[in-house]
Amino acid sequence: MKIAVLGGTDGLGKTIAKFLKKEGFELLITGQNTSKGEKAAKELGLQFSNDNKLTASKSDIIIIAVPIDKIENVIQEIANFLKPNSLVIDVGSIKEKPAKAMVKYLPKNHEFIPIHPIFGPRTTSLKGQVMVLTPLKKGKWYFKIINYLKNHQVKVIETSPEEHDKMMGIVQVLTHFSYISTAYALKKLKVDIKKTREFASPIYNLMVDIIGRIVSQNPELTYSIQKDNLKGKIIRECFLNASKEINESLNSDNKEKFKEIAISATKNINDIESSLGRSDKAIDSITNELIKLTESLKKEIAVKHIYSKEIHYGFLEKIDSDFIFIKNPNSKAKKCQRLKISNIELLSSEDFLKWKKNNIPTKNYQITVVFNKNSDPEVIKNTLEIVPNVINVKIVEIYKGNQINENQISINFSITTFKKKDLYKVTKILKGFGGIIR
Amino acid sequence: MKIAVLGGTDGLGKTIAKFLKKEGFELLITGQNTSKGEKAAKELGLQFSNDNKLTASKSDIIIIAVPIDKIENVIQEIANFLKPNSLVIDVGSIKEKPAKAMVKYLPKNHEFIPIHPIFGPRTTSLKGQVMVLTPLKKGKWYFKIINYLKNHQVKVIETSPEEHDKMMGIVQVLTHFSYISTAYALKKLKVDIKKTREFASPIYNLMVDIIGRIVSQNPELTYSIQKDNLKGKIIRECFLNASKEINESLNSDNKEKFKEIAISATKNINDIESSLGRSDKAIDSITNELIKLTESLKKEIAVKHIYSKEIHYGFLEKIDSDFIFIKNPNSKAKKCQRLKISNIELLSSEDFLKWKKNNIPTKNYQITVVFNKNSDPEVIKNTLEIVPNVINVKIVEIYKGNQINENQISINFSITTFKKKDLYKVTKILKGFGGIIR
Repeated sequence: MKIAVLGGTDGLGKTIAKFLKKEGFELLITGQNTSKGEKAAKELGLQFSNDNKLTASKSDIIIIAVPIDKIENVIQEIANFLKPNSLVIDVGSIKEKPAKAMVKYLPKNHEFIPIHPIFGPRTTSLKGQVMVLTPLKKGKWYFKIINYLKNHQVKVIETSPEEHDKMMGIVQVLTHFSYISTAYALKKLKVDIKKTREFASPIYNLMVDIIGRIVSQNPELTYSIQKDNLKGKIIRECFLNASKEINESLNSDNKEKFKEIAISATKNINDIESSLGRSDKAIDSITNELIKLTESLKKEIAVKHIYSKEIHYGFLEKIDSDFIFIKNPNSKAKKCQRLKISNIELLSSEDFLKWKKNNIPTKNYQITVVFNKNSDPEVIKNTLEIVPNVINVKIVEIYKGNQINENQISINFSITTFKKKDLYKVTKILKGFGGIIR
Repeated sequence: MKIAVLGGTDGLGKTIAKFLKKEGFELLITGQNTSKGEKAAKELGLQFSNDNKLTASKSDIIIIAVPIDKIENVIQEIANFLKPNSLVIDVGSIKEKPAKAMVKYLPKNHEFIPIHPIFGPRTTSLKGQVMVLTPLKKGKWYFKIINYLKNHQVKVIETSPEEHDKMMGIVQVLTHFSYISTAYALKKLKVDIKKTREFASPIYNLMVDIIGRIVSQNPELTYSIQKDNLKGKIIRECFLNASKEINESLNSDNKEKFKEIAISATKNINDIESSLGRSDKAIDSITNELIKLTESLKKEIAVKHIYSKEIHYGFLEKIDSDFIFIKNPNSKAKKCQRLKISNIELLSSEDFLKWKKNNIPTKNYQITVVFNKNSDPEVIKNTLEIVPNVINVKIVEIYKGNQINENQISINFSITTFKKKDLYKVTKILKGFGGIIR
């Protein structure tokens, strides 16, 4: 099956293409900028074209991942070049306009599904993510797509394009507008944000991080989100009035009015208890990690890069406010490796051991031990394998014969550990159970 | 040493009193409302008075934890009743005004430290928390306090009261104002917030949670924060202008202007990369927990309540969007226990096992086994203890004598496990190493 991602050279489109390629599909991507497109295609290992029509005509599924304000044009462009039984999907964050354009331009009864994947291009797994589907009709493709998404543990929501856009007016227009306003005020106030962070609680730091996250999105997208939602203007007007009203209550010393606003707004956000719990947990997760890192100073650790998923291993030599410095004892480099704390995750002791077993150089040692004949070499092997830092135990030979007593057996084990030191525990156990090392 | 917490019947004051009581200090709390005060005192197991002067006169450290707008009055009230070598601390979120009042009213050379603990009353541990100290002079108490805080892994920042208030203008005034405005706009728009959450990404849910967190604080406190900071008015004005300017650029289709604002605001928040990393991790921590819970369905789990720290144990029978339902196999109750997901944390397999060992009913079994004389009962005991689900192994008796061979010893172990089934692995190992069970 061939899948085309129109606008698959950047942003969410690129993320989708990368994901589907990994899933084993045959992928084609298009984009307006040929040099950028070829670069992306090379990076992802797939085919690029700047011809939407030709690409669509060869594909079984066409995913339109172009900027919101171009979706309608692209639908119109490809409409007469589609394979008869193909499926058209768009993945814009607005659904009313694309759905109308699909009805208007696509051949009658050609299947399409407007989809809004509610996650950004930085997402690395579909597990637990939300996708809103706003199908107007349900054809054979629809059920395939639903199955595929459910198998990948996507949380699927179905609604009408209109209802979707109404909800997004809150989820995106209002929150983005308020965050961008705050970021712009911070700039106007000429504040050294790095300095304020020192004075701040974890919740302030998280707030600034989220502001940074929203405001740093592609400004073309942020602009479209405000402009293309039909309710955008009213929502922003409402926000401006709300802040003006609160400011007036403060400037006129009207404490009662301020309290009334705060209390009514609190009531409106139902289930504050859950909000407190969840935000506490989010903050704790960051605070706890810093504590764990501090406790691991001078110890052997492994950290995972949250984007590349690469593991970095070594002794934690130093921590400052932004970085950790680790030294890999098996590397020839004299300098520590510097890693940004915000980009790494400390592996749990369980995961660290698992990783170590697969990645740290190991050594094999031969041990021959004599036990009573009624002993079971397999059980001894399994027991030695639960000893910490013992990676693997193999039975090389079992000997019964002239050189030992007739009621004894001699077992030759090959034991894999990280260091010779780790072998000490093994011989201690063998001797402790009455074995004689030969 | 006696410590008084004036205003210790509620909010942060109550949290401080509770914490210091647990630390073993003798505590006195005061408050204006006698019935509320007596209730709090009973709850915390300490003495209540509504007399600030008398309480201050009996104390070595006086912590003023009353609302910001009352701090000055309380300093004036107690000033002439202090023990000669006592220490006065205030814990308000504004420092310039209280510092001036201390200088004005306290006896000359009486030691005081204005402190701002940058965390809310919900905090349960000092570890990793930030406290800003704005001492004007450093006396004998100062060094004791610094030591105490550092021993508790508090991140101490020192600055002048003026610099502190300037920073708080950003950290508190601006962010609170923007959040309360958003919450009020949500109310004015008559939005079903629960419904919007379904349509939303984890980042939106976290944003709403943080908005809920800020807006639901005591409105008296939120009001004081806006009013008592001398820069409050200018900061709010700046925010209003910023949002007006952005709105105008949108309404007049001035895309270039909007992009310019977004880009300059992004640049001002330096190190966006770290912001993205940290917020990704915060979101992941919540998403991952939900995934882990889903994977644990029908399995044995233990969860920790994030506030009470109580552990709940059982089989995970059901999960819905807000709750989990667990059934404790050792309890006679037929109904499942329902727990709010936002308030609980799943224990790691390591912590779960540790908890199980201390809390799940266990059984003792006696096993007698014969080994060669050269075996070491202590090593055998230690080896059996690393077998999963073996809680404890004791050597009851070691026998050498007539009833067995002269080159053998008989060891009697008492073995503690959760279930008889777990004993099977123990006998398997003993036999596997050539032991004879008697």
